[in-house]
Amino acid sequence: MHSAETAQSDVCPVLATARIVSGKWTLLVLRDLALGPCRFGELERSLTGISPRTLSLRLRSLEEEGVLERRVYAEAPPRVEYRLTGKGEALVPIIEAMRVYGDEWLAEQRRRLATAV
Amino acid sequence: MHSAETAQSDVCPVLATARIVSGKWTLLVLRDLALGPCRFGELERSLTGISPRTLSLRLRSLEEEGVLERRVYAEAPPRVEYRLTGKGEALVPIIEAMRVYGDEWLAEQRRRLATAV
Repeated sequence: MHSAETAQSDVCPVLATARIVSGKWTLLVLRDLALGPCRFGELERSLTGISPRTLSLRLRSLEEEGVLERRVYAEAPPRVEYRLTGKGEALVPIIEAMRVYGDEWLAEQRRRLATAV
Repeated sequence: MHSAETAQSDVCPVLATARIVSGKWTLLVLRDLALGPCRFGELERSLTGISPRTLSLRLRSLEEEGVLERRVYAEAPPRVEYRLTGKGEALVPIIEAMRVYGDEWLAEQRRRLATAV
């Protein structure tokens, strides 16, 4: 038995999803993989500023979460590709909705951030 | 002028939206307000475990963000209500999509969290 109060926030499906789609690198990895399978080096070049170690950790945790899978092809040198699973593909419409929202409602704020650089 | 690399992540509309929908309390406040205007005390009771100070800060920052508005009604004692703006209403479908995803794909994980309490 558990208290309804404690369970409320831990078990909330919205919060459970937020845990996946809230990290900056996680979102950027999902965004890239939504366009198709990627190799490690491709992701690294796309995610400017990420360290190889951080990218490895992020990919491993998304793999453990079941959101993406790692496929090794027996070539020389071996080719490793990351691709979304069904559970990962199902996140893509949410990320797309976040993009539409950002374009529509946060354009001003994003312009400010860009010109502040 | 700014570098494309730095701007990439700061200006990404997905990340800009993630900044809003990633906080636990923020999501819970938006979830409650999606059902209609709420008073401070109603939110406080609904968000079990939140301190009045944290709730105040969260409400103020969402108000500054333009996601909700605070209306004061001249009654005795004055009645204060919080309600979503258009910018806040536009977040509701995203939160709903997160709920559907969590129900469909994260049920197992949520059960584990619940029974661990």
